[in-house]
Amino acid sequence: MEKSFNCCVLSQLRQQSRAQLARHIRSQMQSSRSYSAPVQGSIPAAKKKYVPTSGSYPIGFTASGTIVGVKPGNKTKPDLAFVASDRPCVAAAVFTKNKFQAAPVTFSRNLLQKKANHGIQGVIVNSGCANAVTGKGGLEDAEKMAFAADKCLGQSDGTLVMSTGVIGQRLPIDKITSNIPAAHSALGASHDHWLACAKAICTTDTFPKLISRPFSLPSSPSIEYRIAGMTKGAGMIHPNMATLLGIIATDAPVSSSALPSALKHAVDRSFNSITIDGDTSTNDTVALLANGAAGGKEVVENSPDYDAFQTVLTDFAVDLAQLVVRDGEGATKFVTIRVVESPSEEVARKIASTIARSPLVKTALYGKDANWGRILCATGYSLISEPGLPINDVPEISPEKTNVSFIPTDGSAELKLLVNGEPEQVNETRAAEILEHEDLEILVRLGTGNKEATYWTCDYSHEYITINGDYRT
Amino acid sequence: MEKSFNCCVLSQLRQQSRAQLARHIRSQMQSSRSYSAPVQGSIPAAKKKYVPTSGSYPIGFTASGTIVGVKPGNKTKPDLAFVASDRPCVAAAVFTKNKFQAAPVTFSRNLLQKKANHGIQGVIVNSGCANAVTGKGGLEDAEKMAFAADKCLGQSDGTLVMSTGVIGQRLPIDKITSNIPAAHSALGASHDHWLACAKAICTTDTFPKLISRPFSLPSSPSIEYRIAGMTKGAGMIHPNMATLLGIIATDAPVSSSALPSALKHAVDRSFNSITIDGDTSTNDTVALLANGAAGGKEVVENSPDYDAFQTVLTDFAVDLAQLVVRDGEGATKFVTIRVVESPSEEVARKIASTIARSPLVKTALYGKDANWGRILCATGYSLISEPGLPINDVPEISPEKTNVSFIPTDGSAELKLLVNGEPEQVNETRAAEILEHEDLEILVRLGTGNKEATYWTCDYSHEYITINGDYRT
Repeated sequence: MEKSFNCCVLSQLRQQSRAQLARHIRSQMQSSRSYSAPVQGSIPAAKKKYVPTSGSYPIGFTASGTIVGVKPGNKTKPDLAFVASDRPCVAAAVFTKNKFQAAPVTFSRNLLQKKANHGIQGVIVNSGCANAVTGKGGLEDAEKMAFAADKCLGQSDGTLVMSTGVIGQRLPIDKITSNIPAAHSALGASHDHWLACAKAICTTDTFPKLISRPFSLPSSPSIEYRIAGMTKGAGMIHPNMATLLGIIATDAPVSSSALPSALKHAVDRSFNSITIDGDTSTNDTVALLANGAAGGKEVVENSPDYDAFQTVLTDFAVDLAQLVVRDGEGATKFVTIRVVESPSEEVARKIASTIARSPLVKTALYGKDANWGRILCATGYSLISEPGLPINDVPEISPEKTNVSFIPTDGSAELKLLVNGEPEQVNETRAAEILEHEDLEILVRLGTGNKEATYWTCDYSHEYITINGDYRT
Repeated sequence: MEKSFNCCVLSQLRQQSRAQLARHIRSQMQSSRSYSAPVQGSIPAAKKKYVPTSGSYPIGFTASGTIVGVKPGNKTKPDLAFVASDRPCVAAAVFTKNKFQAAPVTFSRNLLQKKANHGIQGVIVNSGCANAVTGKGGLEDAEKMAFAADKCLGQSDGTLVMSTGVIGQRLPIDKITSNIPAAHSALGASHDHWLACAKAICTTDTFPKLISRPFSLPSSPSIEYRIAGMTKGAGMIHPNMATLLGIIATDAPVSSSALPSALKHAVDRSFNSITIDGDTSTNDTVALLANGAAGGKEVVENSPDYDAFQTVLTDFAVDLAQLVVRDGEGATKFVTIRVVESPSEEVARKIASTIARSPLVKTALYGKDANWGRILCATGYSLISEPGLPINDVPEISPEKTNVSFIPTDGSAELKLLVNGEPEQVNETRAAEILEHEDLEILVRLGTGNKEATYWTCDYSHEYITINGDYRT
């Protein structure tokens, strides 16, 4: 039966139009890429290793993830996330630079400014609708969400708001606000509470992204501080932060001037260095709350404690941001793009970012093709002036000094592809070996300076097209 | 049998992994997307209307397309194109701004400079190999091609060179130069000669792109001038010209100072306004030859003749450039993106170009999804500063003044999606109707000025991924 089926299928496949086959694939993918992900049990086997089974959570914080049904059809996936502190926090946040800011972004940005980064006690988040491009009504809805959460917390002007999902549709606001008391009752400090919260902010993610860890600061070596955070994002990811949807909480005491600068430093090296598809969202936000509940000396700028905290926070943010790349829609590859020996970090970033967004580089990676020519092509147009404008000098790039290599992430030998502007005779077998792995580093040496930058990205696959040809985002 | 087969296939499809299905699709596509396109008879039915069956060709020019076998496996597709004039021409060209210029680009650019746009008599082009990133050896190979062609024409320093195909590999130069005499012998002035030439420059194109037409100039109303041209390109298209691979010839007498400016004007509004995938090639070149063989008064700048010629040339270049979009790899849609009411053309261009390159906009178009939210999102990040850099003001965009509409190309009513920053209740049936058509115009009104710009593009489909996951370009 097997043999005759295969012959039958193959010959019929040859006869069927490609369009029909594409529709089959699409419906297959749609049914397994359902909105009910990432409910327990439906996390892809390959991604389970990224989901923690326990954690160490900061004192005084609680979290919950509950179901409202923001999208009418949703009856199973948590879509309302609540993070609360039992005492006021110093808060900082970074937001998208997209000119069409979603209502929750406008609301949260204004609130932080009004409160001068003090006295924030909650973050309320819905998935299933971005509340973006919703005019005055949308802003009022964001205010109502904050107000309902404040009421539960016995606060005023104490809650940040975030939303994620489809752009251009209004929230079912009464449904949401009437469920916020239940979300408040559901708050707890256990790992399961935090995990439910992380699930509630997801949309097309295939797994919840939650990390927690302890750390210490030089001035108080006996205190175990904790930092915990969650993030989401699988498409429409080219954070420019402002950036992504992320909530980070810590019980370390950090001053209201130190916290924003620490966050910015961390975000520039993490969330602002990832891209899935080059599309910078209207909603990106990362908020960081520090409630000081673990005690110790307040962390202020220009101190050993600040440096230590900044390092902890940056490494943490990098780990969270990389989880987003690991879950890029349809991705099969996790790619680190390092541009080194550049005259400036800005130029290195621009080049790395351009390579990371090139459709031809990303499809070649999907096809496991060692197509360094496309990498070079992207490098070559990354800094040029727009079409129609006069040609500009790009002194940072010297073709005869440019080197491109693949660096396998298993520690084996670097594979040189271009050396000082001249192509190598590439060992295709070795290249194919390297490209079989999920992880890969592409190293571009400009040879014109000593600054560098890194971007993380993934490939473009058929599945990306399927997901985004069908998902009204 | 049909019924049981369908049941059989469907249930097996559900059981088979998506990866297996993707491989089936890929092999199907590979076999019909063979390198032997666009040999006569294999032009897709839907594209036949773009291939002319006759033409009016400029006096004194001849063309040929012959087979060398640049790619070892190619035994059927012409891959050496030759265009020659029986007398010296005034010539102009625009080239890619990519920092990694292919050898033929370097060669041709230098030649035109050396000859001050005079005395060019031939253009020799190979497909199957881009001769890019090939170091000193590659430049020598480009010189050899030109020399061999010059020899046939009885010239020196008279031939421009172009190449297209895979980056990073050397030309089989002896094979090419030894076939140039045959290409010279094959030169002719008939439609079939020009068509064979247009086929010879193709790579992943599914149809040859050739246009010819007569025109007149005010000062010599009784003279019928002709203009003919060919172009190629289906992937790695985001011309930044310099730009694409195109050859245009005319028998009008145009001065050596007027020709370059007329070409630049035309190219900015045509080839520099298309994008398939945002990747600006290392090889893009458009060359324009004017041999004056039809007589009449020389066209100089700042004259009615110049204005007329510029209009003819611009419209011609637009038509040629649009053919490239019509053949975008895997494309199912032809999309015009107009950004109007902008303070400057430069800003309008940047916005139109960003929308045209957004993977989320392009996949939505493939999915026939009226997802204006993604269009707005792309508009919103088109002018912002890079991640990590401070936020910049973007006075050109005022969310409350922004309007987005679909304009059906069949003359039926505009469908408003966003009006002064507020979303419309969109008639989804009407939207679906509009998106069923191959052609669509997206109109974005900024409401902050009176300048505009247009970009043409296509959608992203599964086929784009398949083609570029497999084709070593």
